[in-house]
Amino acid sequence: MQLGMIGLGRMGGNMTERLTGGGHQVETFDPKVDSTAGSLKELRDKLEAPRVFWMMVPAGEITESTFTELLDLAEKGDTIVDGGNSNFHDSQRRATTAAEHGIGFVDAGVSGGVWGLKEGYCLMAGGEDDVVKPLEPIFLTLAPENGYAHVGPSGAGHFVKMVHNGIEYGLMQAYAEGFEVMQASPLDLDLEQIAGIWRSGSVVRSWLLDLLHRAFAEEGSDLAQIRGYVDDSGEGRWTIAEAIAEDVPVPVISAALFARLASRQDESFAAKVNAALRNQFGGHAVRASDET
Amino acid sequence: MQLGMIGLGRMGGNMTERLTGGGHQVETFDPKVDSTAGSLKELRDKLEAPRVFWMMVPAGEITESTFTELLDLAEKGDTIVDGGNSNFHDSQRRATTAAEHGIGFVDAGVSGGVWGLKEGYCLMAGGEDDVVKPLEPIFLTLAPENGYAHVGPSGAGHFVKMVHNGIEYGLMQAYAEGFEVMQASPLDLDLEQIAGIWRSGSVVRSWLLDLLHRAFAEEGSDLAQIRGYVDDSGEGRWTIAEAIAEDVPVPVISAALFARLASRQDESFAAKVNAALRNQFGGHAVRASDET
Repeated sequence: MQLGMIGLGRMGGNMTERLTGGGHQVETFDPKVDSTAGSLKELRDKLEAPRVFWMMVPAGEITESTFTELLDLAEKGDTIVDGGNSNFHDSQRRATTAAEHGIGFVDAGVSGGVWGLKEGYCLMAGGEDDVVKPLEPIFLTLAPENGYAHVGPSGAGHFVKMVHNGIEYGLMQAYAEGFEVMQASPLDLDLEQIAGIWRSGSVVRSWLLDLLHRAFAEEGSDLAQIRGYVDDSGEGRWTIAEAIAEDVPVPVISAALFARLASRQDESFAAKVNAALRNQFGGHAVRASDET
Repeated sequence: MQLGMIGLGRMGGNMTERLTGGGHQVETFDPKVDSTAGSLKELRDKLEAPRVFWMMVPAGEITESTFTELLDLAEKGDTIVDGGNSNFHDSQRRATTAAEHGIGFVDAGVSGGVWGLKEGYCLMAGGEDDVVKPLEPIFLTLAPENGYAHVGPSGAGHFVKMVHNGIEYGLMQAYAEGFEVMQASPLDLDLEQIAGIWRSGSVVRSWLLDLLHRAFAEEGSDLAQIRGYVDDSGEGRWTIAEAIAEDVPVPVISAALFARLASRQDESFAAKVNAALRNQFGGHAVRASDET
Protein backbone atom coordinates (compact mmCIF):
# COMPACT_ATOMS: atom_id res chain seq x y z
CA MET A 1 0.00 0.00 0.00
CA GLN A 2 0.87 3.65 -0.21
CA LEU A 3 0.90 5.92 2.83
CA GLY A 4 2.23 9.23 4.06
CA MET A 5 4.25 9.10 7.27
CA ILE A 6 4.29 12.35 9.23
CA GLY A 7 7.10 12.54 11.79
CA LEU A 8 10.38 10.68 11.40
CA GLY A 9 11.47 10.53 15.03
CA ARG A 10 12.64 7.32 16.71
CA MET A 11 9.27 5.68 16.16
CA GLY A 12 8.21 7.13 12.78
CA GLY A 13 11.63 6.63 11.24
CA ASN A 14 11.88 2.98 12.20
CA MET A 15 8.28 2.31 11.24
CA THR A 16 8.92 3.83 7.81
CA GLU A 17 11.89 1.51 7.41
CA ARG A 18 9.85 -1.53 8.44
CA LEU A 19 6.99 -0.57 6.10
CA THR A 20 9.32 0.03 3.16
CA GLY A 21 11.00 -3.30 3.85
CA GLY A 22 7.53 -4.87 3.76
CA GLY A 23 6.93 -3.58 0.25
CA HIS A 24 4.80 -0.54 1.04
CA GLN A 25 5.40 2.79 -0.65
CA VAL A 26 5.96 5.38 2.08
CA GLU A 27 6.07 9.10 1.35
CA THR A 28 7.29 11.13 4.32
CA PHE A 29 7.03 14.55 5.90
CA ASP A 30 9.14 15.87 8.74
CA PRO A 31 10.10 19.56 8.83
CA LYS A 32 13.43 18.56 10.41
CA VAL A 33 14.37 16.11 7.64
CA ASP A 34 15.42 17.60 4.28
CA SER A 35 14.75 14.52 2.18
CA THR A 36 11.03 14.54 3.01
CA ALA A 37 8.15 16.47 1.45
CA GLY A 38 8.37 20.25 1.96
CA SER A 39 4.93 20.51 3.52
CA LEU A 40 1.84 18.50 4.38
CA LYS A 41 0.30 19.83 1.18
CA GLU A 42 3.25 18.53 -0.83
CA LEU A 43 2.91 15.19 0.97
CA ARG A 44 -0.75 15.06 0.05
CA ASP A 45 0.03 15.72 -3.60
CA LYS A 46 2.47 12.81 -3.66
CA LEU A 47 -0.24 10.38 -2.54
CA GLU A 48 -2.99 8.91 -4.66
CA ALA A 49 -6.55 9.09 -3.38
CA PRO A 50 -7.87 7.57 -1.23
CA ARG A 51 -4.87 8.59 0.88
CA VAL A 52 -3.59 7.29 4.20
CA PHE A 53 -1.88 9.84 6.46
CA TRP A 54 -0.06 8.37 9.44
CA MET A 55 0.71 10.88 12.22
CA MET A 56 3.67 9.76 14.32
CA VAL A 57 4.24 12.93 16.31
CA PRO A 58 4.21 13.69 20.06
CA ALA A 59 0.79 13.66 21.73
CA GLY A 60 -0.71 17.04 22.53
CA GLU A 61 -0.42 20.32 20.63
CA ILE A 62 1.56 19.08 17.67
CA THR A 63 -0.84 16.17 17.12
CA GLU A 64 -3.78 18.59 17.31
CA SER A 65 -2.28 21.12 14.88
CA THR A 66 -1.20 18.39 12.44
CA PHE A 67 -4.66 16.83 12.61
CA THR A 68 -6.37 20.16 11.99
CA GLU A 69 -4.13 20.94 9.03
CA LEU A 70 -4.68 17.46 7.59
CA LEU A 71 -8.45 17.84 7.89
CA ASP A 72 -8.21 20.90 5.64
CA LEU A 73 -5.94 19.20 3.12
CA ALA A 74 -7.51 15.77 3.01
CA GLU A 75 -10.29 14.76 0.64
CA LYS A 76 -13.36 12.65 1.27
CA GLY A 77 -12.36 9.01 1.57
CA ASP A 78 -8.87 9.74 2.90
CA THR A 79 -7.90 8.33 6.30
CA ILE A 80 -5.85 9.84 9.11
CA VAL A 81 -4.12 7.45 11.50
CA ASP A 82 -2.83 8.72 14.84
CA GLY A 83 -0.08 6.32 15.93
CA GLY A 84 1.08 8.47 18.85
CA ASN A 85 0.12 8.24 22.51
CA SER A 86 -2.87 10.58 22.37
CA ASN A 87 -5.45 10.55 25.11
CA PHE A 88 -8.32 8.35 23.91
CA HIS A 89 -10.87 11.10 24.65
CA ASP A 90 -9.05 13.31 22.12
CA SER A 91 -9.04 10.43 19.64
CA GLN A 92 -12.78 9.94 20.05
CA ARG A 93 -13.32 13.66 19.42
CA ARG A 94 -11.01 13.66 16.39
CA ALA A 95 -12.77 10.62 14.91
CA THR A 96 -16.11 12.42 15.17
CA THR A 97 -14.70 15.61 13.63
CA ALA A 98 -13.02 13.66 10.83
CA ALA A 99 -16.24 11.75 10.08
CA GLU A 100 -18.08 15.08 9.72
CA HIS A 101 -15.58 15.90 6.95
CA GLY A 102 -15.99 12.47 5.32
CA ILE A 103 -12.49 11.56 6.49
CA GLY A 104 -11.69 8.27 8.21
CA PHE A 105 -9.80 8.23 11.49
CA VAL A 106 -7.94 5.38 13.19
CA ASP A 107 -6.35 5.59 16.64
CA ALA A 108 -3.48 3.14 16.65
CA GLY A 109 -1.70 2.21 19.87
CA VAL A 110 1.83 1.21 18.95
CA SER A 111 4.14 -0.54 21.40
CA GLY A 112 7.66 -1.82 20.93
CA GLY A 113 9.96 1.16 21.37
CA VAL A 114 13.30 1.23 19.61
CA TRP A 115 13.16 -2.57 19.22
CA GLY A 116 10.07 -2.49 17.02
CA LEU A 117 11.99 -2.12 13.78
CA LYS A 118 13.45 -5.58 14.23
CA GLU A 119 10.88 -7.36 16.40
CA GLY A 120 7.72 -5.69 15.14
CA TYR A 121 5.29 -3.36 16.90
CA CYS A 122 2.32 -4.59 18.88
CA LEU A 123 -0.53 -2.70 17.24
CA MET A 124 -3.94 -1.91 18.77
CA ALA A 125 -6.30 -0.23 16.32
CA GLY A 126 -9.51 1.63 17.16
CA GLY A 127 -12.08 2.83 14.61
CA GLU A 128 -14.96 1.89 12.35
CA ASP A 129 -14.69 -1.43 10.53
CA ASP A 130 -14.84 0.12 7.06
CA VAL A 131 -12.02 2.52 7.94
CA VAL A 132 -9.75 0.05 9.75
CA LYS A 133 -10.11 -2.95 7.44
CA PRO A 134 -8.52 -1.41 4.31
CA LEU A 135 -5.45 -0.43 6.36
CA GLU A 136 -4.75 -3.90 7.67
CA PRO A 137 -1.92 -4.65 5.20
CA ILE A 138 -0.05 -1.75 6.85
CA PHE A 139 -0.84 -2.90 10.39
CA LEU A 140 0.15 -6.47 9.60
CA THR A 141 3.52 -5.34 8.25
CA LEU A 142 4.24 -3.23 11.33
CA ALA A 143 3.22 -5.96 13.77
CA PRO A 144 4.92 -9.28 14.41
CA GLU A 145 2.80 -12.38 13.84
CA ASN A 146 -0.32 -12.27 16.05
CA GLY A 147 0.64 -8.79 17.28
CA TYR A 148 -2.18 -6.83 15.66
CA ALA A 149 -5.86 -6.52 16.47
CA HIS A 150 -8.72 -4.17 15.76
CA VAL A 151 -9.66 -3.83 19.42
CA GLY A 152 -12.81 -1.71 19.17
CA PRO A 153 -14.46 1.54 18.08
CA SER A 154 -12.77 4.93 17.86
CA GLY A 155 -10.74 5.59 20.99
CA ALA A 156 -10.32 1.89 21.83
CA GLY A 157 -6.85 1.70 20.30
CA HIS A 158 -5.52 4.52 22.43
CA PHE A 159 -7.51 3.37 25.48
CA VAL A 160 -5.91 -0.08 25.32
CA LYS A 161 -2.47 1.44 24.71
CA MET A 162 -3.03 3.75 27.70
CA VAL A 163 -3.80 0.81 29.98
CA HIS A 164 -0.86 -1.09 28.48
CA ASN A 165 1.41 1.74 29.57
CA GLY A 166 -0.22 1.98 33.00
CA ILE A 167 0.53 -1.72 33.49
CA GLU A 168 4.07 -1.06 32.28
CA TYR A 169 4.54 1.48 35.11
CA GLY A 170 3.52 -1.14 37.66
CA LEU A 171 5.70 -3.87 36.17
CA MET A 172 8.73 -1.60 36.08
CA GLN A 173 8.26 -0.39 39.66
CA ALA A 174 7.83 -3.99 40.90
CA TYR A 175 11.19 -4.98 39.41
CA ALA A 176 12.71 -1.70 40.58
CA GLU A 177 11.70 -2.24 44.22
CA GLY A 178 12.83 -5.85 44.27
CA PHE A 179 16.25 -4.97 42.89
CA GLU A 180 16.62 -2.16 45.41
CA VAL A 181 15.87 -4.62 48.24
CA MET A 182 18.57 -6.92 46.87
CA GLN A 183 20.99 -4.05 46.32
CA ALA A 184 20.54 -2.93 49.94
CA SER A 185 21.02 -6.44 51.33
CA PRO A 186 24.29 -7.29 53.14
CA LEU A 187 24.43 -10.54 51.13
CA ASP A 188 26.53 -8.85 48.40
CA LEU A 189 24.33 -10.04 45.57
CA ASP A 190 25.25 -9.72 41.90
CA LEU A 191 22.23 -8.04 40.33
CA GLU A 192 23.35 -8.67 36.76
CA GLN A 193 23.74 -12.38 37.52
CA ILE A 194 20.33 -12.58 39.19
CA ALA A 195 18.51 -10.70 36.43
CA GLY A 196 20.32 -13.02 34.05
CA ILE A 197 19.19 -16.34 35.52
CA TRP A 198 15.66 -15.10 36.16
CA ARG A 199 15.31 -14.81 32.38
CA SER A 200 15.41 -18.61 32.11
CA GLY A 201 12.65 -20.66 33.70
CA SER A 202 11.52 -18.21 36.40
CA VAL A 203 7.97 -16.92 36.86
CA VAL A 204 9.13 -13.28 36.52
CA ARG A 205 10.75 -13.64 33.11
CA SER A 206 9.69 -10.93 30.70
CA TRP A 207 10.92 -8.63 28.00
CA LEU A 208 11.37 -5.82 30.56
CA LEU A 209 13.59 -8.17 32.59
CA ASP A 210 15.61 -8.86 29.43
CA LEU A 211 16.14 -5.12 29.08
CA LEU A 212 17.03 -4.74 32.76
CA HIS A 213 19.62 -7.49 32.45
CA ARG A 214 21.02 -5.65 29.44
CA ALA A 215 21.14 -2.40 31.43
CA PHE A 216 23.07 -4.06 34.29
CA ALA A 217 25.45 -5.64 31.78
CA GLU A 218 26.08 -2.33 30.04
CA GLU A 219 26.03 0.03 33.02
CA GLY A 220 27.22 -2.18 35.86
CA SER A 221 24.98 -3.48 38.63
CA ASP A 222 25.19 -0.15 40.51
CA LEU A 223 23.87 1.84 37.50
CA ALA A 224 26.35 4.47 38.68
CA GLN A 225 25.99 6.70 35.64
CA ILE A 226 22.18 6.77 35.62
CA ARG A 227 20.36 9.30 37.77
CA GLY A 228 17.29 8.07 39.65
CA TYR A 229 14.98 10.52 37.89
CA VAL A 230 11.99 9.05 36.07
CA ASP A 231 9.80 10.97 33.63
CA ASP A 232 6.34 10.05 32.47
CA SER A 233 4.51 10.90 29.30
CA GLY A 234 0.93 10.82 30.56
CA GLU A 235 -0.51 7.35 30.02
CA GLY A 236 -0.02 6.35 33.65
CA ARG A 237 -1.90 9.32 35.02
CA TRP A 238 -4.64 8.86 32.41
CA THR A 239 -5.01 5.20 33.38
CA ILE A 240 -5.50 6.26 36.99
CA ALA A 241 -7.99 8.97 35.98
CA GLU A 242 -10.01 6.42 33.98
CA ALA A 243 -9.83 3.91 36.81
CA ILE A 244 -11.26 6.54 39.15
CA ALA A 245 -13.95 7.41 36.60
CA GLU A 246 -14.91 3.71 36.53
CA ASP A 247 -14.60 3.25 40.35
CA VAL A 248 -11.82 0.69 39.89
CA PRO A 249 -9.08 0.67 42.55
CA VAL A 250 -5.58 0.69 41.03
CA PRO A 251 -3.24 0.89 44.02
CA VAL A 252 -0.19 -0.55 42.29
CA ILE A 253 -0.39 1.60 39.16
CA SER A 254 -0.98 4.67 41.37
CA ALA A 255 1.95 3.84 43.63
CA ALA A 256 4.14 3.37 40.55
CA LEU A 257 3.21 6.80 39.18
CA PHE A 258 3.72 8.43 42.59
CA ALA A 259 7.17 6.81 42.85
CA ARG A 260 8.04 8.47 39.54
CA LEU A 261 6.80 11.84 40.76
CA ALA A 262 8.83 11.44 43.98
CA SER A 263 11.93 10.57 41.95
CA ARG A 264 11.86 14.07 40.46
CA GLN A 265 11.75 15.93 43.78
CA ASP A 266 15.00 17.12 45.32
CA GLU A 267 13.07 17.31 48.57
CA SER A 268 9.48 16.54 49.43
CA PHE A 269 7.41 19.23 51.11
CA ALA A 270 5.38 16.43 52.69
CA ALA A 271 8.62 15.21 54.29
CA LYS A 272 9.22 18.71 55.67
CA VAL A 273 5.68 18.71 57.10
CA ASN A 274 6.26 15.30 58.69
CA ALA A 275 9.55 16.39 60.20
CA ALA A 276 7.95 19.59 61.55
CA LEU A 277 5.07 17.66 63.12
CA ARG A 278 7.35 15.10 64.79
CA ASN A 279 9.26 18.02 66.24
CA GLN A 280 6.07 19.73 67.43
CA PHE A 281 4.44 16.82 69.19
CA GLY A 282 7.43 14.82 70.29
CA GLY A 283 10.34 17.23 70.37
CA HIS A 284 12.09 15.02 67.83
CA ALA A 285 15.14 16.71 66.31
CA VAL A 286 14.73 18.26 62.87
CA ARG A 287 17.56 18.70 60.39
CA ALA A 288 18.11 22.28 59.25
CA SER A 289 17.46 22.87 55.58
CA ASP A 290 21.19 23.33 54.87
CA GLU A 291 22.21 20.24 56.87
CA THR A 292 22.92 16.93 55.12
CA MET B 1 24.51 -38.11 40.56
CA GLN B 2 22.53 -39.82 43.25
CA LEU B 3 20.15 -37.96 45.53
CA GLY B 4 17.24 -38.52 47.87
CA MET B 5 14.14 -36.46 47.11
CA ILE B 6 11.89 -35.85 50.11
CA GLY B 7 8.36 -34.79 49.16
CA LEU B 8 6.70 -35.75 45.89
CA GLY B 9 4.12 -32.99 45.62
CA ARG B 10 3.63 -30.93 42.46
CA MET B 11 7.17 -29.58 42.67
CA GLY B 12 9.08 -32.58 44.05
CA GLY B 13 7.36 -35.06 41.76
CA ASN B 14 8.11 -33.11 38.58
CA MET B 15 11.65 -32.36 39.70
CA THR B 16 12.26 -36.06 40.32
CA GLU B 17 11.02 -36.78 36.80
CA ARG B 18 13.27 -34.10 35.30
CA LEU B 19 16.28 -35.35 37.28
CA THR B 20 15.69 -38.97 36.34
CA GLY B 21 15.31 -37.93 32.72
CA GLY B 22 18.66 -36.17 33.05
CA GLY B 23 20.37 -39.39 34.09
CA HIS B 24 20.47 -38.90 37.84
CA GLN B 25 19.56 -41.67 40.25
CA VAL B 26 16.78 -40.39 42.49
CA GLU B 27 15.61 -42.28 45.56
CA THR B 28 12.43 -40.85 47.05
CA PHE B 29 10.53 -40.49 50.29
CA ASP B 30 6.98 -39.27 50.70
CA PRO B 31 4.76 -40.78 53.43
CA LYS B 32 1.78 -40.35 51.09
CA VAL B 33 3.32 -42.32 48.23
CA ASP B 34 3.59 -46.12 48.63
CA SER B 35 6.34 -46.65 46.07
CA THR B 36 8.82 -44.55 48.02
CA ALA B 37 11.09 -45.42 50.94
CA GLY B 38 9.20 -46.28 54.11
CA SER B 39 11.03 -43.70 56.21
CA LEU B 40 13.78 -41.11 56.09
CA LYS B 41 16.06 -43.73 57.65
CA GLU B 42 15.25 -46.17 54.86
CA LEU B 43 15.92 -43.41 52.32
CA ARG B 44 19.28 -42.76 53.94
CA ASP B 45 20.20 -46.42 53.72
CA LYS B 46 19.45 -46.45 49.99
CA LEU B 47 21.96 -43.65 49.35
CA GLU B 48 25.72 -43.97 49.22
CA ALA B 49 27.80 -41.55 51.29
CA PRO B 50 28.37 -38.67 50.84
CA ARG B 51 24.59 -38.33 50.48
CA VAL B 52 22.45 -35.53 49.08
CA PHE B 53 19.03 -35.09 50.69
CA TRP B 54 16.73 -32.71 48.85
CA MET B 55 13.79 -31.44 50.94
CA MET B 56 10.88 -30.38 48.73
CA VAL B 57 8.24 -29.91 51.41
CA PRO B 58 6.13 -26.92 52.48
CA ALA B 59 7.98 -24.15 54.32
CA GLY B 60 7.47 -24.00 58.08
CA GLU B 61 6.91 -26.83 60.55
CA ILE B 62 7.30 -29.74 58.17
CA THR B 63 10.55 -28.35 56.79
CA GLU B 64 11.81 -27.83 60.34
CA SER B 65 10.88 -31.34 61.52
CA THR B 66 12.28 -32.96 58.38
CA PHE B 67 15.49 -30.99 58.75
CA THR B 68 15.85 -31.96 62.40
CA GLU B 69 15.25 -35.62 61.64
CA LEU B 70 17.73 -35.53 58.76
CA LEU B 71 20.38 -33.95 60.99
CA ASP B 72 20.13 -36.98 63.25
CA LEU B 73 20.25 -39.50 60.39
CA ALA B 74 22.85 -37.84 58.20
CA GLU B 75 26.57 -38.51 58.43
CA LYS B 76 29.47 -36.11 58.22
CA GLY B 77 29.95 -35.02 54.63
CA ASP B 78 26.30 -35.46 53.65
CA THR B 79 24.40 -32.42 52.34
CA ILE B 80 20.84 -31.27 52.93
CA VAL B 81 19.24 -29.08 50.28
CA ASP B 82 16.10 -27.10 51.10
CA GLY B 83 14.33 -26.44 47.80
CA GLY B 84 11.18 -25.04 49.39
CA ASN B 85 10.22 -21.45 50.06
CA SER B 86 11.71 -21.21 53.53
CA ASN B 87 12.40 -17.84 55.09
CA PHE B 88 16.07 -17.05 54.50
CA HIS B 89 16.65 -16.34 58.19
CA ASP B 90 15.62 -19.95 58.91
CA SER B 91 17.93 -21.14 56.17
CA GLN B 92 20.85 -19.20 57.63
CA ARG B 93 20.15 -20.76 61.04
CA ARG B 94 19.84 -24.25 59.57
CA ALA B 95 23.10 -23.87 57.65
CA THR B 96 24.88 -22.96 60.88
CA THR B 97 23.32 -25.87 62.76
CA ALA B 98 24.12 -28.28 59.94
CA ALA B 99 27.73 -27.08 59.80
CA GLU B 100 28.07 -27.78 63.55
CA HIS B 101 27.18 -31.40 62.72
CA GLY B 102 29.61 -31.52 59.79
CA ILE B 103 26.66 -31.57 57.41
CA GLY B 104 26.45 -29.30 54.36
CA PHE B 105 23.39 -27.17 53.74
CA VAL B 106 22.18 -25.47 50.56
CA ASP B 107 19.16 -23.18 50.33
CA ALA B 108 17.86 -23.47 46.80
CA GLY B 109 15.26 -21.06 45.48
CA VAL B 110 13.32 -22.87 42.76
CA SER B 111 10.99 -21.06 40.39
CA GLY B 112 8.97 -22.39 37.50
CA GLY B 113 5.81 -23.87 38.98
CA VAL B 114 4.04 -26.70 37.22
CA TRP B 115 5.80 -25.74 33.95
CA GLY B 116 9.26 -26.48 35.30
CA LEU B 117 9.21 -30.14 34.32
CA LYS B 118 9.19 -29.19 30.66
CA GLU B 119 10.81 -25.73 30.63
CA GLY B 120 13.27 -26.16 33.48
CA TYR B 121 13.39 -24.48 36.88
CA CYS B 122 15.22 -21.22 37.51
CA LEU B 123 17.52 -22.15 40.36
CA MET B 124 19.13 -19.79 42.89
CA ALA B 125 21.53 -21.55 45.26
CA GLY B 126 22.91 -20.22 48.53
CA GLY B 127 25.70 -21.83 50.55
CA GLU B 128 29.42 -22.38 50.91
CA ASP B 129 31.39 -22.96 47.72
CA ASP B 130 32.61 -26.42 48.76
CA VAL B 131 29.06 -27.52 49.53
CA VAL B 132 27.35 -26.01 46.47
CA LYS B 133 29.92 -26.90 43.82
CA PRO B 134 29.63 -30.71 44.01
CA LEU B 135 25.84 -30.42 43.58
CA GLU B 136 25.98 -28.41 40.37
CA PRO B 137 25.28 -31.39 38.07
CA ILE B 138 21.89 -31.63 39.82
CA PHE B 139 21.21 -27.89 39.60
CA LEU B 140 22.19 -27.78 35.94
CA THR B 141 19.79 -30.62 35.11
CA LEU B 142 16.91 -28.93 36.92
CA ALA B 143 17.54 -25.52 35.33
CA PRO B 144 17.18 -24.53 31.70
CA GLU B 145 20.32 -23.20 30.00
CA ASN B 146 21.64 -20.13 31.88
CA GLY B 147 18.93 -20.56 34.53
CA TYR B 148 21.18 -21.55 37.44
CA ALA B 149 23.52 -19.52 39.62
CA HIS B 150 25.22 -19.81 42.98
CA VAL B 151 24.01 -16.42 44.14
CA GLY B 152 25.76 -16.11 47.49
CA PRO B 153 26.36 -17.49 51.00
CA SER B 154 23.83 -19.45 53.06
CA GLY B 155 20.47 -17.74 52.97
CA ALA B 156 21.15 -15.95 49.68
CA GLY B 157 19.27 -18.54 47.62
CA HIS B 158 16.10 -18.14 49.62
CA PHE B 159 16.58 -14.37 49.95
CA VAL B 160 16.74 -13.98 46.18
CA LYS B 161 13.78 -16.31 45.72
CA MET B 162 11.85 -14.29 48.32
CA VAL B 163 12.46 -11.05 46.41
CA HIS B 164 11.62 -12.85 43.16
CA ASN B 165 8.24 -13.72 44.59
CA GLY B 166 7.74 -10.20 45.98
CA ILE B 167 8.32 -8.85 42.48
CA GLU B 168 5.90 -11.46 41.17
CA TYR B 169 3.16 -10.04 43.43
CA GLY B 170 3.71 -6.58 41.97
CA LEU B 171 3.78 -7.80 38.37
CA MET B 172 0.59 -9.80 38.83
CA GLN B 173 -1.28 -6.92 40.49
CA ALA B 174 -0.18 -4.49 37.74
CA TYR B 175 -1.68 -6.75 35.07
CA ALA B 176 -4.71 -7.39 37.27
CA GLU B 177 -5.50 -3.70 37.71
CA GLY B 178 -5.02 -2.90 34.04
CA PHE B 179 -7.34 -5.69 32.97
CA GLU B 180 -9.98 -4.59 35.48
CA VAL B 181 -9.84 -1.04 34.05
CA MET B 182 -10.39 -2.50 30.58
CA GLN B 183 -13.10 -4.85 31.80
CA ALA B 184 -14.97 -1.92 33.39
CA SER B 185 -14.71 0.25 30.28
CA PRO B 186 -17.83 0.82 28.14
CA LEU B 187 -15.70 0.10 25.03
CA ASP B 188 -16.63 -3.60 25.17
CA LEU B 189 -13.05 -4.82 24.92
CA ASP B 190 -12.08 -8.44 24.32
CA LEU B 191 -9.58 -9.19 27.09
CA GLU B 192 -8.45 -12.48 25.60
CA GLN B 193 -7.72 -10.76 22.29
CA ILE B 194 -5.81 -7.94 23.99
CA ALA B 195 -3.74 -10.24 26.20
CA GLY B 196 -3.10 -12.22 23.04
CA ILE B 197 -1.67 -9.43 20.90
CA TRP B 198 0.31 -7.93 23.79
CA ARG B 199 2.34 -11.15 23.76
CA SER B 200 3.84 -10.17 20.42
CA GLY B 201 6.00 -7.07 20.20
CA SER B 202 4.61 -5.11 23.17
CA VAL B 203 6.66 -3.78 26.08
CA VAL B 204 4.53 -5.72 28.61
CA ARG B 205 5.09 -9.16 27.12
CA SER B 206 6.07 -11.73 29.72
CA TRP B 207 5.56 -15.28 30.79
CA LEU B 208 2.86 -14.19 33.27
CA LEU B 209 1.03 -12.51 30.38
CA ASP B 210 1.27 -15.77 28.42
CA LEU B 211 -0.40 -17.52 31.36
CA LEU B 212 -3.06 -14.81 31.66
CA HIS B 213 -3.88 -15.15 27.98
CA ARG B 214 -4.18 -18.89 28.54
CA ALA B 215 -6.51 -18.31 31.50
CA PHE B 216 -8.79 -16.03 29.45
CA ALA B 217 -8.81 -18.57 26.62
CA GLU B 218 -9.71 -21.42 28.97
CA GLU B 219 -12.04 -19.61 31.36
CA GLY B 220 -13.52 -16.88 29.19
CA SER B 221 -12.65 -13.20 29.48
CA ASP B 222 -15.01 -12.76 32.45
CA LEU B 223 -13.27 -15.50 34.50
CA ALA B 224 -16.79 -16.31 35.66
CA GLN B 225 -15.86 -19.54 37.41
CA ILE B 226 -12.91 -18.13 39.35
CA ARG B 227 -13.51 -16.40 42.65
CA GLY B 228 -11.57 -13.20 43.32
CA TYR B 229 -9.84 -14.65 46.38
CA VAL B 230 -6.03 -14.58 46.39
CA ASP B 231 -3.88 -16.47 48.85
CA ASP B 232 -0.25 -15.85 49.64
CA SER B 233 2.43 -18.15 50.93
CA GLY B 234 4.63 -15.67 52.77
CA GLU B 235 7.36 -14.44 50.44
CA GLY B 236 5.58 -11.15 49.70
CA ARG B 237 5.23 -10.25 53.36
CA TRP B 238 8.83 -11.29 54.03
CA THR B 239 10.04 -9.11 51.16
CA ILE B 240 8.24 -6.16 52.73
CA ALA B 241 9.64 -6.99 56.18
CA GLU B 242 13.18 -7.08 54.76
CA ALA B 243 12.60 -3.89 52.82
CA ILE B 244 11.55 -2.18 56.06
CA ALA B 245 14.58 -3.64 57.85
CA GLU B 246 16.78 -2.11 55.13
CA ASP B 247 14.83 1.21 55.00
CA VAL B 248 13.86 0.60 51.37
CA PRO B 249 10.42 1.86 50.29
CA VAL B 250 8.43 -0.81 48.41
CA PRO B 251 5.06 0.82 47.76
CA VAL B 252 4.09 -1.38 44.83
CA ILE B 253 4.97 -4.71 46.43
CA SER B 254 3.16 -3.59 49.62
CA ALA B 255 0.06 -2.49 47.69
CA ALA B 256 0.06 -5.82 45.87
CA LEU B 257 0.14 -7.77 49.14
CA PHE B 258 -2.57 -5.58 50.68
CA ALA B 259 -4.76 -6.13 47.60
CA ARG B 260 -4.45 -9.89 48.24
CA LEU B 261 -5.38 -9.46 51.89
CA ALA B 262 -8.39 -7.33 50.90
CA SER B 263 -9.48 -9.98 48.39
CA ARG B 264 -10.04 -12.40 51.26
CA GLN B 265 -12.29 -10.13 53.30
CA ASP B 266 -16.04 -10.44 52.89
CA GLU B 267 -16.22 -6.96 54.35
CA SER B 268 -13.56 -4.60 55.56
CA PHE B 269 -13.80 -3.26 59.10
CA ALA B 270 -11.94 -0.18 57.88
CA ALA B 271 -14.77 0.37 55.41
CA LYS B 272 -17.28 0.14 58.27
CA VAL B 273 -15.24 2.74 60.18
CA ASN B 274 -15.16 5.02 57.14
CA ALA B 275 -18.90 4.71 56.61
CA ALA B 276 -19.56 5.40 60.30
CA LEU B 277 -17.37 8.50 60.27
CA ARG B 278 -18.98 9.94 57.10
CA ASN B 279 -22.30 9.45 58.85
CA GLN B 280 -21.06 11.15 62.02
CA PHE B 281 -19.56 14.28 60.52
CA GLY B 282 -21.66 14.74 57.43
CA GLY B 283 -24.89 12.88 58.08
CA HIS B 284 -24.14 10.76 55.03
CA ALA B 285 -26.40 7.72 54.82
CA VAL B 286 -24.98 4.39 55.95
CA ARG B 287 -26.13 1.03 54.67
CA ALA B 288 -27.34 -1.38 57.33
CA SER B 289 -25.25 -4.49 57.75
CA ASP B 290 -27.99 -6.66 56.21
CA GLU B 291 -28.59 -4.32 53.26
CA THR B 292 -27.02 -4.96 49.86
